[in-house]
Amino acid sequence: MTILIENALMLDGKRADTLIEENRIAAINPKQKDRSDVVIDATKKAIVPGLFNMHTHAAMILLKGYADDYELHEWLTQHIFPMEAKLKPKHVYYGTLLACAEMIHSGTTCFNDMYFFEEEIAKAVERAGMRAVVSKALTTQSYNRAEAKKAIKKLSDFERVLPALGPHAIYTTDKETLCDVKELASELDVLIHFHLSETKKEVEDCLKEHGKRPAEYLKEIGFLSNRVINAHCVWLNEREIKIVAESGAKMVSCPTSNLKLASGIAPLTEIVDAGIATMLGTDGSASNNSLNMFETIKLASLLQKYKQWDATALPAEQAFELATINAAKALNLKAGVIKEGFLADLCLIDLTHISMVPCYNLISNIVFSAEPACVDTVICNGRILMENRVIGWEADIKEKAMQVAEELLSE
Amino acid sequence: MTILIENALMLDGKRADTLIEENRIAAINPKQKDRSDVVIDATKKAIVPGLFNMHTHAAMILLKGYADDYELHEWLTQHIFPMEAKLKPKHVYYGTLLACAEMIHSGTTCFNDMYFFEEEIAKAVERAGMRAVVSKALTTQSYNRAEAKKAIKKLSDFERVLPALGPHAIYTTDKETLCDVKELASELDVLIHFHLSETKKEVEDCLKEHGKRPAEYLKEIGFLSNRVINAHCVWLNEREIKIVAESGAKMVSCPTSNLKLASGIAPLTEIVDAGIATMLGTDGSASNNSLNMFETIKLASLLQKYKQWDATALPAEQAFELATINAAKALNLKAGVIKEGFLADLCLIDLTHISMVPCYNLISNIVFSAEPACVDTVICNGRILMENRVIGWEADIKEKAMQVAEELLSE
Repeated sequence: MTILIENALMLDGKRADTLIEENRIAAINPKQKDRSDVVIDATKKAIVPGLFNMHTHAAMILLKGYADDYELHEWLTQHIFPMEAKLKPKHVYYGTLLACAEMIHSGTTCFNDMYFFEEEIAKAVERAGMRAVVSKALTTQSYNRAEAKKAIKKLSDFERVLPALGPHAIYTTDKETLCDVKELASELDVLIHFHLSETKKEVEDCLKEHGKRPAEYLKEIGFLSNRVINAHCVWLNEREIKIVAESGAKMVSCPTSNLKLASGIAPLTEIVDAGIATMLGTDGSASNNSLNMFETIKLASLLQKYKQWDATALPAEQAFELATINAAKALNLKAGVIKEGFLADLCLIDLTHISMVPCYNLISNIVFSAEPACVDTVICNGRILMENRVIGWEADIKEKAMQVAEELLSE
Repeated sequence: MTILIENALMLDGKRADTLIEENRIAAINPKQKDRSDVVIDATKKAIVPGLFNMHTHAAMILLKGYADDYELHEWLTQHIFPMEAKLKPKHVYYGTLLACAEMIHSGTTCFNDMYFFEEEIAKAVERAGMRAVVSKALTTQSYNRAEAKKAIKKLSDFERVLPALGPHAIYTTDKETLCDVKELASELDVLIHFHLSETKKEVEDCLKEHGKRPAEYLKEIGFLSNRVINAHCVWLNEREIKIVAESGAKMVSCPTSNLKLASGIAPLTEIVDAGIATMLGTDGSASNNSLNMFETIKLASLLQKYKQWDATALPAEQAFELATINAAKALNLKAGVIKEGFLADLCLIDLTHISMVPCYNLISNIVFSAEPACVDTVICNGRILMENRVIGWEADIKEKAMQVAEELLSE
């Protein structure tokens, strides 16, 4: 199928026509444009790359607002873990699909997920039409090499799904497991999705147990490499930032979740300056409680301005890159910009939406003013997932997700 | 006119019918409900008090995204002041109306404004149907007692407008002016809207000039009283918090703006604990760049969790009060809750909106998950300002505002 998007405002302030053929952007301002299957008049719209939500636990949307304003340990052990123990595949499938609807509404076309029942996640991604990294989540307790291998093989069968291994964190996954996961990731040529240095407690416990800080410990056991995507990194010190940079490992900041759980503010400016591939994520809905990447991009920029005492820190353009091109590069996807030959993963923004008026600087408005409702159309892999703010399957899934959530809570 | 809102979810988790007569909530679960002019089926909706945006410069929406990521001094002197010098009444009128549309969309029914051409602001408030505190903005340079008096008199003629005096800040308004404003406010029985301790520089300059910190200086000259609403208060220390508390003066925190301009995080928990009447505001769109109070409420809570290293700090319920009942009390309005006899300033939230699914705890969802687009209907003073997300005059005003903004920028 071919889609022609006419006369959209681009991030450089110019207007252009964008031709999509199959799953790629075939041309910007094509000479021939009379044979498109679908033509979209974008005179009142802007065209921007789809956002990448690079750390989340999508199905946790079923626990959104279920337990707020608790201390992290109490939150996990008294409220979240007991619920998660009752999860069945259907909860993960419908939960992930509901999360996909929220992400599509807020302009996200790709997400990096870590949760139970990974095959259900992949099925939901397939149905939603999005792109995703889906991890086989594991801890020392649950890890089994043969099973992990089988899971990766199964995930590989899904279109638009990048399989990954998801060892949880140093306090749930021991040295032996981490080293084995590292080897397996090399063997299968997949990414590793990991939680690193989220809380001060993690650092303190690591110092007690290993006499080293988390990144130092991971370097020592040889875990870090350019396959590893480290979520959080709130407590990395200068030496650890250097270690992560030298290893080629990547980093995802989740500013909203880190504030909500009183974990802290990641040293994002220093991490970016050290040359680490840096991205953004919302984290799961139970600790955010939203999958709105516009909020996350804005907060990432604002918190660095605060932390650096410098209103020029992490400006709009750079913050936007963290949520687009940086993630595409980290996943080795030709995506994240509107350019010939790149994947047709993109959004049309309604420039008449109240949050976008006036619009002197499109990037500024997207980073500091945009609300999800300004996203009019979302295209992923050349297919329209949402048009005029309507997702065909949304109402059904909401109902189904509410139903399984109620079952979960009343069990 | 009477409006009956049937079967809406209330903040206490129960369902109820709400009867509005004239500008008041006449009854909750009225016995007789068959004679209403308008009946709204709210089975899929929640009813909540309208939000109070207690510090803004609404017309600055015309400068939204015009100059971002600059250092505060450069931002003001190189970008904002030169534009403001060119402002004409029409810019303030259409800018304020555009801001009203954005505020109504995000559930705000009352705002506290400070800007030039106060009569234009009042006209815009009248046209929009909102409620507002409108200040006669002044500095030592511009202050003239007779003119200020005249301005207050004119503002008093507008329905739903509470007139106030708006001396800008200690670095633009000297002791003599502040003392005169204080006297005049008593004479006219109006509030005073003021900027206090927004930046570290303000504190340092005050220490240099007066040998005292800002609140100490204001106490010394006798300026503080329960008439004064202090915006920002980022740099108040323990002693100053006590001074403000003892004076009865009120406080408005603007967390988003304070981060964006790298001003800091206000000691909100300490301020609330000291018994100061505490509220929230967005500040103007040039330093935010949004008038979305949901964002402000969430950020206020999140930043206190971070600042206190305590995930239980400023919980959802308390954060919501800062944006509703606290402000109503500060303005001496019987509003801010859904209760018989209170002003009919309220919103209906669409519980099927993607940001509100699932909904275990309405306050949690409103504080941590709500997007403006979940606001379906807004009623102020018993009159419907928005229904099904539609504001009748919005399209016209957007066009007109864009037009005058272009004129302003091209002059």
